[in-house]
Amino acid sequence: MSATLKPGDMIGILGSGQLGRMLAMAGARLGLRTHIYAPEPGPALDVCAQHTIAPYEDEAALAAFADSVAVVSYEFENVPAATAAFLAARRHVRPGPGALAITQDRLSEKTFLNQLGIPTARFAQVDDVAGLTAALDTLGRPAILKTRRFGYDGKGQVMIRPGQDIAEAFSALGGQACILEGLVTFAREVSVVGARSLSGDFAAFDVCENEHENHILSRTIVPARLGAQTARAAMDMAGKIAAALDYVGVITVEMFLVEEAGSETIVVNEIAPRVHNSGHWTIDGAVTSQFEQHMRAICGWALGSPRRHGAIDMRNLIGAQANDWEAMLAEPGLCLHLYGKHEAREGRKMGHFTRVLPEEEHEAQAGPLNRT
Amino acid sequence: MSATLKPGDMIGILGSGQLGRMLAMAGARLGLRTHIYAPEPGPALDVCAQHTIAPYEDEAALAAFADSVAVVSYEFENVPAATAAFLAARRHVRPGPGALAITQDRLSEKTFLNQLGIPTARFAQVDDVAGLTAALDTLGRPAILKTRRFGYDGKGQVMIRPGQDIAEAFSALGGQACILEGLVTFAREVSVVGARSLSGDFAAFDVCENEHENHILSRTIVPARLGAQTARAAMDMAGKIAAALDYVGVITVEMFLVEEAGSETIVVNEIAPRVHNSGHWTIDGAVTSQFEQHMRAICGWALGSPRRHGAIDMRNLIGAQANDWEAMLAEPGLCLHLYGKHEAREGRKMGHFTRVLPEEEHEAQAGPLNRT
Repeated sequence: MSATLKPGDMIGILGSGQLGRMLAMAGARLGLRTHIYAPEPGPALDVCAQHTIAPYEDEAALAAFADSVAVVSYEFENVPAATAAFLAARRHVRPGPGALAITQDRLSEKTFLNQLGIPTARFAQVDDVAGLTAALDTLGRPAILKTRRFGYDGKGQVMIRPGQDIAEAFSALGGQACILEGLVTFAREVSVVGARSLSGDFAAFDVCENEHENHILSRTIVPARLGAQTARAAMDMAGKIAAALDYVGVITVEMFLVEEAGSETIVVNEIAPRVHNSGHWTIDGAVTSQFEQHMRAICGWALGSPRRHGAIDMRNLIGAQANDWEAMLAEPGLCLHLYGKHEAREGRKMGHFTRVLPEEEHEAQAGPLNRT
Repeated sequence: MSATLKPGDMIGILGSGQLGRMLAMAGARLGLRTHIYAPEPGPALDVCAQHTIAPYEDEAALAAFADSVAVVSYEFENVPAATAAFLAARRHVRPGPGALAITQDRLSEKTFLNQLGIPTARFAQVDDVAGLTAALDTLGRPAILKTRRFGYDGKGQVMIRPGQDIAEAFSALGGQACILEGLVTFAREVSVVGARSLSGDFAAFDVCENEHENHILSRTIVPARLGAQTARAAMDMAGKIAAALDYVGVITVEMFLVEEAGSETIVVNEIAPRVHNSGHWTIDGAVTSQFEQHMRAICGWALGSPRRHGAIDMRNLIGAQANDWEAMLAEPGLCLHLYGKHEAREGRKMGHFTRVLPEEEHEAQAGPLNRT
């Protein structure tokens, strides 16, 4: 297979959720077709040229999928390693299985980051209750116990406070291999969404500032309230991570902004090897969307401009919040996105909207800025 | 069926071309699903939830299609009247069969416009060679003989110059019912793309200025070079036409700008009861795209803001022009759209690109403006 694709080629995406849906739509803009592969139907099926519903362990289905596409990518990081390896033997998988392996495991991810000289929360490996006891002696309480794998939106983690029974905490996570993380006292949560091309170019969108409710992203504003130098450092950090992973595609680095004695520092929380909820505003608020950037990168094409159209206010629509769609449609300038999910279950991401505002309005709305 | 739809509902679109494709994608943004019905496969099939490939005369297929959707619309005006009537008996058809009937026939369209007090080229009905002789006596030469129905991109028309054999001209169009149109000497071709909602609101995008090559749109710039008062009058004219047709959806009015003795007047050329090539820039250059406006309107929802992000330069990619996609992808800020057509036949619309520019650059590029 050629390393670079051409319009009309078929892109394979693992996963049928809203990220796969928005990737497929961005691909279609560029004349690409999308083949979705997922164990269960999801909203991506309504906008793709082809789909396969089969388990990630079904080698016959995977082989047929690989034969039908020119490149394989994915909408989420929990693709089984064996699936990625099976596909990578047949087709380009971008980002590659190496990046996937490192970012699937919180322990290998943090070790990788520290080896690059990038600060993270202090952490310790925890394989059993004895290990947890030792880790707590080092890191102190409160600390956060997390499964090494398969966590998202706050699932697979538990806070260990003073006095808490640690055997209970460990078993609450199913006795899996874990990592204990020291608590970071941060002023804000931010993220850098960037893309790295096959030829090694890196283009980041402006730093996003994120608010969460119940561990789920509720709001992103851009630009994030942080100093220009800190913002530059955060974007450079993401570029350094992407280069070290020999990454191709969109990568997201979630970070804590720590303010201490009047200075700002960045601590990396985690890497998402994919398009990210905090980058959804780029559909309406940037020259090139994160979804188009990802498609350009995995096709071996030039990246687009990440330039912003204005100040950004993006809100997620979680569960019943999407029921107010009529009021949102009636607000002039509000860009509404609904994911076509049939049932508005609690905690389910049903859609989002983006307001693209003149810079002044944004500053007034977000509160006083803290720029250097 | 309820007059208004909700997210998750299925939209039926007649036609599988690039307009259907972009309508389906705009619908998907809002959580709508699309069922494409067309006699032949086309690029819309890659992005729709469901499709039916069957003739427009297949009543069983049409009935099943109607049963599966909440509203029917179309991407082109040449839907057979019997098909529209059959569907309208079962589901909302928007815009309605009445608007379709008037705009399918150049004679009824021009008669309708003149009755509204809207100027058109002078015209005469031509049913045979004797009628053509009489019409030429009235309108003079050169004049344009056009079939009353099914013309597009310059097909179904012939210019009658002095000395030309009129029997030959009439038979060149297959001896169909025709209309003879007097020649309009125009300074520029412009169009108004607007949407009318179910509740009667009308929102027009800024007036587009269009250039054609071989009767096919090659370029659209916005704002069109015409006086502010003339622009206002053109947009009002489109609103008046839409209201008189009791129209629901996006309507496009193609116009000639005539400059005479220092004053500008508008002459309407034709009405397209659909989204239009001269409105493709709205995907990247306006708050709401023409495709989303159409979806909002036919769902009975509020219209979005038609506000422009900057000065617009849209170019069509015809045939082999699309082969330069790599160079276009490499131009920062250029927004490329490819329609996923497999074969770049001569004269075939393969894609388009839009540049959204600061106003000053646009004026320099388009040449001196002629604003009042």
